[in-house]
Amino acid sequence: MSLIVQKYGGTSVGSVERIQAVAQRVSKSHGAGHQVVVVVSAMSGETNKLLELAHRCAPQPALREVDVLIATGEQVTSALLAIVLQEQGIPARSFLGHQIRIDTDSAYGRARIQRIDGEHIRGALGRGEVAVVAGFQGVDAHGHITTLGRGGSDTSAVAVAAALKADVCEIYTDVDGVYTSDPRICPQARKLNRISHDEMLELASLGAKVLQIRSVEFAKRYGVPLCVRSSFDDSEGTWVVPEDGAMEQVLVSGVSLDRDQAKITIRHIPDRPGVASKVLGPIAAANISVDMIIQNASTAGDADFTFTLPKTDVARALKIIEETAREIGAQASSDTEVVKVSVVGLGMRSHAGVAARMFETLAAEGINIQMISTSEIKISVVIEAKYGELAVRALHKALIEEASLGA
Amino acid sequence: MSLIVQKYGGTSVGSVERIQAVAQRVSKSHGAGHQVVVVVSAMSGETNKLLELAHRCAPQPALREVDVLIATGEQVTSALLAIVLQEQGIPARSFLGHQIRIDTDSAYGRARIQRIDGEHIRGALGRGEVAVVAGFQGVDAHGHITTLGRGGSDTSAVAVAAALKADVCEIYTDVDGVYTSDPRICPQARKLNRISHDEMLELASLGAKVLQIRSVEFAKRYGVPLCVRSSFDDSEGTWVVPEDGAMEQVLVSGVSLDRDQAKITIRHIPDRPGVASKVLGPIAAANISVDMIIQNASTAGDADFTFTLPKTDVARALKIIEETAREIGAQASSDTEVVKVSVVGLGMRSHAGVAARMFETLAAEGINIQMISTSEIKISVVIEAKYGELAVRALHKALIEEASLGA
Repeated sequence: MSLIVQKYGGTSVGSVERIQAVAQRVSKSHGAGHQVVVVVSAMSGETNKLLELAHRCAPQPALREVDVLIATGEQVTSALLAIVLQEQGIPARSFLGHQIRIDTDSAYGRARIQRIDGEHIRGALGRGEVAVVAGFQGVDAHGHITTLGRGGSDTSAVAVAAALKADVCEIYTDVDGVYTSDPRICPQARKLNRISHDEMLELASLGAKVLQIRSVEFAKRYGVPLCVRSSFDDSEGTWVVPEDGAMEQVLVSGVSLDRDQAKITIRHIPDRPGVASKVLGPIAAANISVDMIIQNASTAGDADFTFTLPKTDVARALKIIEETAREIGAQASSDTEVVKVSVVGLGMRSHAGVAARMFETLAAEGINIQMISTSEIKISVVIEAKYGELAVRALHKALIEEASLGA
Repeated sequence: MSLIVQKYGGTSVGSVERIQAVAQRVSKSHGAGHQVVVVVSAMSGETNKLLELAHRCAPQPALREVDVLIATGEQVTSALLAIVLQEQGIPARSFLGHQIRIDTDSAYGRARIQRIDGEHIRGALGRGEVAVVAGFQGVDAHGHITTLGRGGSDTSAVAVAAALKADVCEIYTDVDGVYTSDPRICPQARKLNRISHDEMLELASLGAKVLQIRSVEFAKRYGVPLCVRSSFDDSEGTWVVPEDGAMEQVLVSGVSLDRDQAKITIRHIPDRPGVASKVLGPIAAANISVDMIIQNASTAGDADFTFTLPKTDVARALKIIEETAREIGAQASSDTEVVKVSVVGLGMRSHAGVAARMFETLAAEGINIQMISTSEIKISVVIEAKYGELAVRALHKALIEEASLGA
């Protein structure tokens, strides 16, 4: 008998019929004698609908109340799934964040889980019940409802699995695993059977929506065996696992394309110490997160400064930067016609040739590289938007399909 | 400075625009220096939509989970109103049943309030905030979410007003007060300025949907000054108040028509002690509530037994009764073509003539009375459905428009 945590995303619980299909799958695991905890997202579209309602009420709705509002999405799904399970003769009970309870900090809209009390869920499992947990939500020290940010139900699931020392945490979604690239862009992309936590973290931070970053961090820290699977078929899915020796044999495990990128440049900055903080300080204060940053001094004694940021923040950021530019006598400009292409792989640690082969490949396609950033297991480049798909396909071919570590 | 509890029904918060109008009204009271607690229902139609979803999941959805589900309706409205108030510059905070907290028993779907802790709301009021309370919901001793039944937000409002010793509890709805009869049936109906708790209780139990019965009971028991008003205009509304001498000058204050009535009759029951309990026991066990009951012995030594019940329960009840009838050798039949017409008034206590005048009036219109039931301040008759409106108009004319106590 195992203790299994299963998480179902919005598409998997998007209608009564789909909730019934989820119940069938839960019932199979329960019937096989396992203890089952199910974590559910809101029905697909619900969270956006509620957010839209909030924004019709106020351009900047109060964050505490937005969390009270959007937490209802998962509350509805958890109740419906419990109803369907009971209808199928399986004892089941819904649990809300404050009932479990899932303690978080008070950062509304992006709260972090601090502690989970597993006692009530363990009680339900002990009575043979399926525990249906409303994902995405928690409660702060004052009893206020909090939510964990986009994809937060993944983190709920992994955190609950960690708290209960579950044998496995299965993330059911509308794709059947983690791919080497987006199959809609790159038809040669193939499903990975296994991927390391670190690679998954890099892919997630590059915009792969299959798992919330924090859920992977949790899984890594607490050693939760994590599996991404499709709720629509019975294929094996992708295991997200601790790194082992065999993995390093693979040079690159993923090529990703992030379209939600924009670039802001300030030219002719007087090259003095403290310029970077003068430029980025007000941006950080406005809660805009900056990704890649490049500063290069010109021979003329001044410097250019470029950074990337999410497209949605570019108008707001440019207004701030233009003010700074005026103060220091520089010129600011923005460019939203850019994308970020990245390759991720544990193999990069021990094989120096990846970067060179990546740049050669792009050059051979006539693609100019605007910015470069690297981590231990990742290389990202910013290029003109129109070359995005071409770059992904070329890099996938050169670094995954044709790659051999001996080359 | 007063402490005011305002309750807004589903129609009054049925859209973002209407919630904004509610905020305006709240803001006026808050701006005048009053402490304001607002209790909200779900947006009109939401509770039914959620119930429909539950019934698509299971014909008899688990009651505990239905409450988790439908409690989200009020949660959404309370968050939205708090957002709108804050957008208008008024400090506001939403409160859910378990946050206040509103302790109830565990009778899901029709829970009763046992105790309200006013501390958190008082804290908010003390900080100058408007407290926005999700109506209809509470929490039982195990931390499970409960709901108070149809119209439960009225009871939430009055109970909160009682707990806080509020100066007034205003019930805002889509009608501007309590009428002597339904104006759609009886154009001569007029708005009452004041009505006693007992009369309001009788009217509510006769199907007047303006207030939930329990809210009136609470108001009576705890002496909460209660006022029913329209959220769409500034008219005075109707005060529901303790009885005083002046009230008894009015003979009848309301004539009501209840169309949700059916009648079940069993004929030729052997006239033995214990028959009533034999007939009604299984009905009560099936949780069907019976209203009027008549038993009359015939000269032949057997008895007829008739009772009324809500139309929705008649099929289920008839099945049970037919079984009983077979056992005791009697015959069962049902009739859904009936209505109940009632007159309510404190004046009946001291004036014996009301019943006589009621029966005369019906006879003059050629309407046959099938059943009669009376209380201290109410007389109800069951008649053929097709005469319903005629009976109401005739009784309203005879007992309200033309009545004088001296007659």
